[in-house]
Formats: sequence, structure tokens, C-alpha cells
Amino acid sequence: MSAPRVLVTGASGFVGRRALAPLAASGFEVHAVGRGASAPAETPEGVRWHRADLLDAAARARLLSRVGASHLLHLAWYAEPGAFWAARENAAWVAATIGLLDEFAAAGGRRATLAGTCAEYDWSAPQPLAEDSPLAPATYYGACKDATRRVAEGLAQLAGVSLAWGRIFFLYGPREDERRLVASVARALAAGERAPTSTGLQRRDFLHVDDVAAAFAAILASKAEGPVNVASGEAVTVRSIAELLAGAAGRPELLDLGALPDRPGDPREIVADIARLRDEVGFAPAWTLQDGLAATVDWWRSELR
Amino acid sequence: MSAPRVLVTGASGFVGRRALAPLAASGFEVHAVGRGASAPAETPEGVRWHRADLLDAAARARLLSRVGASHLLHLAWYAEPGAFWAARENAAWVAATIGLLDEFAAAGGRRATLAGTCAEYDWSAPQPLAEDSPLAPATYYGACKDATRRVAEGLAQLAGVSLAWGRIFFLYGPREDERRLVASVARALAAGERAPTSTGLQRRDFLHVDDVAAAFAAILASKAEGPVNVASGEAVTVRSIAELLAGAAGRPELLDLGALPDRPGDPREIVADIARLRDEVGFAPAWTLQDGLAATVDWWRSELR
Repeated sequence: MSAPRVLVTGASGFVGRRALAPLAASGFEVHAVGRGASAPAETPEGVRWHRADLLDAAARARLLSRVGASHLLHLAWYAEPGAFWAARENAAWVAATIGLLDEFAAAGGRRATLAGTCAEYDWSAPQPLAEDSPLAPATYYGACKDATRRVAEGLAQLAGVSLAWGRIFFLYGPREDERRLVASVARALAAGERAPTSTGLQRRDFLHVDDVAAAFAAILASKAEGPVNVASGEAVTVRSIAELLAGAAGRPELLDLGALPDRPGDPREIVADIARLRDEVGFAPAWTLQDGLAATVDWWRSELR
Repeated sequence: MSAPRVLVTGASGFVGRRALAPLAASGFEVHAVGRGASAPAETPEGVRWHRADLLDAAARARLLSRVGASHLLHLAWYAEPGAFWAARENAAWVAATIGLLDEFAAAGGRRATLAGTCAEYDWSAPQPLAEDSPLAPATYYGACKDATRRVAEGLAQLAGVSLAWGRIFFLYGPREDERRLVASVARALAAGERAPTSTGLQRRDFLHVDDVAAAFAAILASKAEGPVNVASGEAVTVRSIAELLAGAAGRPELLDLGALPDRPGDPREIVADIARLRDEVGFAPAWTLQDGLAATVDWWRSELR
């Protein structure tokens, strides 16, 4: 029997580029699609690279038909830091994702895993958030992911595709856009610059991007269907994360906690119940938070050298 | 100032073909799109006909850009009687509708009205159903319309388009597909055939298709935003409808109430609160149920002659 063939979208993105190796390691013939002409430098050997703009319906349909994948890992979405929460582009990605899944099924696809978000949940619901916790997206990004899931689950069922939906909580790691929280602090500390943050008392569930990518590979290879939280299951304050980063950098004096204003209405705690990921998928993270944050500071040090 | 220009989708459909005259009468330059090469026979003079498949993203984008409409009335959707409730095609229409609205906005569109459905509501909620009644689609069709609305409302807001969403309840009238309830009974009676129905104790809110179309034209021309129920506000039993049809046909002996099985789980009552349509839009139906059903029987008589 030939190897199952997976198509990975968003394959040059923060999570996607790290999903390729675990997929190859678990026996998939890996096809990756991104907007770049060539694969990112660290792409494992043997991965087939496809260049396509998934928002171009005709190009997308051609790609799906040409690859004829049995498996789909769909991570691509509009992700401009800050802007993505309320961007019009979210709507186009709803349409592209539904089209992609439809075309995947039409080309004989059997198993798909799509990226969702903790922003689908009602953040004021009791914590931790389990997959059946109440949904009430507070942002347009969350509303669009939620709407996509509603359509995709029915489509998959009607088309005979087994579908899982990984809800990503918070993530960090090397190569993160430096406009995002952990990266901005890690970069400043690595550069020997002052690192201003809010008071940071809000508690969040952070997972290293390597573990997020490996979790998606594990979900795809599992039989789990429906939503699966992709998270650590542990709530830590943003303040402790900043302090761990400062400790790893050996520059605690650069941390300026409370220098930035707190965001009004920011939820006090967002943390996942990870029973499904742990027990049904059988996934366990490889990184501790402390080691992961230290590795992130190290990466910024090497990047800035 | 030149006339506002409206693009009507689904313009050869049951509702759409009847929306053209009221739109022209209220001062719009009317552009209509359908899959047919030419306009339906009864299309008013002056309406510009465009042939396009709205599921073809490239063709759709070209159409929107070429027409450059200020107003959009989007009625097109997959509507195969019986099948549409659970059809995979609903997903493609979610994507097409989002794309259409995005392209409409990009081409300078300012005001849109899209067709929703009473199937977005939780049918077990207290009746009548108002626009803010709980939502919980029981069907894939309802789930797809609901998801479309969630995405479309945010998109419209971000793109500066004023958007209303007309939730259609039950409708009837000449030219309805004869596989649908009222048409099947009216056709049988007009043909002098036995007309079997269920016991018909369920109560529904029926509006003549002319009034549905005129209501959509009125909503588009109004400033109402968000969901607006398109209905009569009156619940009548399916049994009374069958009896009114039989009375109009003068053939009560052909009616065979209870000959067909009742559908298990069929909601007892689905009826709209029409305060928004009546007070904010200022719309009142032209047809009474009795006259509308009689006209429907007459149409079938002439059709079968």
C-alpha cells in the first residue's frame, strides 16, 4: 500500500512550516502549498512544494485536483498581527476554506484537519474551555472561524470526509512575527533593549509552536472528529511569561512591567481543557514553557547577531 | 442624479423573477443575473439580463465589476425541492455568497439585501419568531444560511455596505415547483386528480410569492439593517390551506387529508413576528391567503389546459 498523501496549506507560515517534518516522520507523502516560489529553507527533503494563492478559486481547484491528496491539513488564513482580529480578509478565507474542502472531497480526499481558534468560544464562560463549552466569538476573526466550522462539518459529513478541527489557543516560538507579544518581549531582551509590557495579570494558555504543529500532525493521523483544543491546559500570567523570558535572557532589569496600558475588557483567563488532545489523540507536548521560552530568546539572540 | 443600479441574483427563480418589476417601479436601473441565456418571458422591459454561473468565482467577479451596482438583491441559492435541506451544494453557496458580497463592495456597492430563512431559528423557541429569537438551525440549509449571515454582516460593516437579511418563511404561488406542498395540491386539484396530504395540523406562516418579492424590494429600498422576517405574521394549518385550495378549485371531494404520513418531529408551529417588516420597512402584503391560493389554482388550471 502506498503512503497516504497529505496536502498542507499555510506551509510557509508560523505553524505550517513546522508541521511538515512530523507529517513526513509519521509516514505521509507530504505536499505543501504556499505563496512563495520555493519552500522555506528548513523544509525537510522529500516534501513536494506547490506555489498557489488559495484565494484564487481556479488555481486552488487545479491544485487540489492535481495533488489528489487523501489527507488535508489546512492551516492557511489571514494572519497579519493585530489586524487579523477585525480584518475584512477573514471573509475571503471563509469562502476559500469551504471551497478547498469541497474540492479536496471531490478529488477523493478522506481525512481533513482544519485550524480553528479559541476565539470561537465565549471567553466569559467558565474555565477551562472544553470543546463543548459555549461559543460566542467576540471578534470577527472568531466569528469567521466559527462560521467556517459550522459549514465545514456538514460538508465533510455529506461528502464522506472525516474532519477534525483544531482550536489553537496561544502560541510562541522562534520566527514568530515580532509584533506579537512573546516575540516582541523576547526580541527586545535579546537585543538588550528595554521591554515594556502591560501589568500582565491576565492568564493565558501558551504552547510552543513546535508542539502546536506536532499536535496538528497527531490529530490528522488520529481518528478524532470535530473540535479538539490545541493547547497546554495550563494558565500562566503574561507577567510570568515575561519574567521567564527575562530570566532566560539574564536581563531582568530590562523588563518594564506595567509600562503599557492593560487592554480594557481583556478576559482575565483563557485556558483549555486538553482531555481530548491528550486522551483521544494521545498527544503530549515536547517542550516545557520554561525551556521553550529560553529557546525563543536564544533564537532571537542568534537572529540579531 | 442617475438612478441607483441594482443587481438581482436568482432572477429567473421563483422569487427573483417577481422582484424585477417592483424594483423597476421604485426607480432602480435593474440588472438581473441568471444561468439562462435570456430573461424569463415575463421580465419587464428595460431590465438588463446577464448570464452567469455565480458558483464560478472568476465569472462572478467579472460580472460584479462590469455591472458596478450600487445595490444588490441576492436571492440565488441551491433550491432543489426536498434535496436542498441536506445538500452539499449549500456549502458552495455560502462561499459564493461571501465572494459576491465582497466583490460587490469592491466595485463600489453601498446597499445589499440577502435572502435568509426561518430555518436559521430554533424552531422549538416560543412563537412568533422575532428577529432576535434564538438561533439553532435544525438543517444543513439553515446552518449554511446562518453561517453566511454571520460572515456577511461583519464583512458588510468592514466594507462600508449597509446590509439587510430577509428571512423567508413559507411561500406559495404560480410557477412554484410542483414537488412542493402548495403546488402539488393545487396542481392535483386543477387537474381533477385526488390530492393526498398529511393530517396537516402543523401551523405555518405562508406568504404569496409576489408579496415575498415585493417585500424584498421594499427592504432593499429601506434603511433597515440586519435580519428582517419576510412573512405574513399569521399561522394557518396546512389543512386549512389544502381546504382553501379545494374550495377555490370547487373540488373538495378530491382532498384526501391524512392519506400521507405526518413527518415525525415536524414542528407544530412556525410563525413570524413581522413588526420590523411592517413598521420599519413599511411593507404590507397585497394578497390575502384566500385570494392568493385561488389565483394559484387558477394558474394551474390555465397551465394544464
